[in-house]
Amino acid sequence: MAGDGEVQFLGAGGSPFARRVQIALKLKGVEYTYIEQDLRNKSELLLKYNPIYKKVPVLVHNGKPLAESLVILEYIDETWNNNYPILPQNPYDKAMARFWTKFIDDKCIPAIGKAAWTTKKEEREKGIEEATEALQILENELKHYHHKFFGGDTIGIVDIAASFIAYWLPIIEQATGFTLLTVHKFPNLHKWTQEFTNHSVVKENLPPSDKLLGFFKARYASLK
Amino acid sequence: MAGDGEVQFLGAGGSPFARRVQIALKLKGVEYTYIEQDLRNKSELLLKYNPIYKKVPVLVHNGKPLAESLVILEYIDETWNNNYPILPQNPYDKAMARFWTKFIDDKCIPAIGKAAWTTKKEEREKGIEEATEALQILENELKHYHHKFFGGDTIGIVDIAASFIAYWLPIIEQATGFTLLTVHKFPNLHKWTQEFTNHSVVKENLPPSDKLLGFFKARYASLK
Repeated sequence: MAGDGEVQFLGAGGSPFARRVQIALKLKGVEYTYIEQDLRNKSELLLKYNPIYKKVPVLVHNGKPLAESLVILEYIDETWNNNYPILPQNPYDKAMARFWTKFIDDKCIPAIGKAAWTTKKEEREKGIEEATEALQILENELKHYHHKFFGGDTIGIVDIAASFIAYWLPIIEQATGFTLLTVHKFPNLHKWTQEFTNHSVVKENLPPSDKLLGFFKARYASLK
Repeated sequence: MAGDGEVQFLGAGGSPFARRVQIALKLKGVEYTYIEQDLRNKSELLLKYNPIYKKVPVLVHNGKPLAESLVILEYIDETWNNNYPILPQNPYDKAMARFWTKFIDDKCIPAIGKAAWTTKKEEREKGIEEATEALQILENELKHYHHKFFGGDTIGIVDIAASFIAYWLPIIEQATGFTLLTVHKFPNLHKWTQEFTNHSVVKENLPPSDKLLGFFKARYASLK
């Protein structure tokens, strides 16, 4: 897409938050320069562009930086608004999409983290209970919805926000030894994970599972 | 504003999150029916309209409910878009406004809570340190900005999100016995709190300070 100005994207291979931005840019067909960040040794560029959080993703459009993945996703949708809308047009549906992305970040991801990154049985059980409750709410939403994706028949911002659940969660389960997102407990959500991760654009823009598995196994081992 | 349909707003007098919605509705001149909620004894209506969080605020527009104050503020701005815009039009400025509202909710308010709601000296000091760091970032933003409000010369979504800092924080400081937002440490932010709380619409839509003070004193006493 010529005439859109210069787009730089600071990410880190394994980060589910950075991958959100990458998937949105690819769905939209936005050309960009990717700059991989080493989060153990933060670059001057990252500190300059995201001095508050010092995290990826950062999007730099015509020299102006933006941080926070959900904020970036909305910006991408508003700026490259001619192709592949990822937010609904109608204000109520748009508000509900925002509600669900916030629910994923505030409730689902922290609960999954609690279940995963502990060696204490009680903490894990508490985490699994909270995560089950949160995922059940998403399961009900999909069930009631009768669409392939949260966004309808095409991928939307809620699907992109939920990448972590579709792709990272099963790998974390394997690495840390618990079971949560089963076809038996969450038939609609499980089916959605398959549809989403097999979407041609999504599939090409996820990190290799063996690398993630190794990383999460090492992280879990370091807790013991 | 006729023809906008029926608007119901579920709030609770002392809630800074509900007051955000109230201020936005008043700035926009939207007519609504207010339904006060007793949060110690949650109503059927609240459980029906916000089954996930069971919290205020809830906005119900033509029978369709919305929860989460920032989500509601954006909905209000998009739905009643002809008067008193509270988000910028330009996508970058809009994204930055979203960034700051998220910063207030993710960093400022939790740090202030940590400083306030503890009887342990070390926890309080840690909380004050975190809150000082977060407020310093807002102070720098205002300083660099040269406007009366975060929204420019009129009140915007960042100002509304920061109501808690302008009005609730000084009362909480008084109730729980710590000092944070001083004119000496935060001259620009302090000036902003005066401008904001003295704005005619804001002033009329804040809870009485003596009631809040009593409530917070009782809450603090219950920790001991």
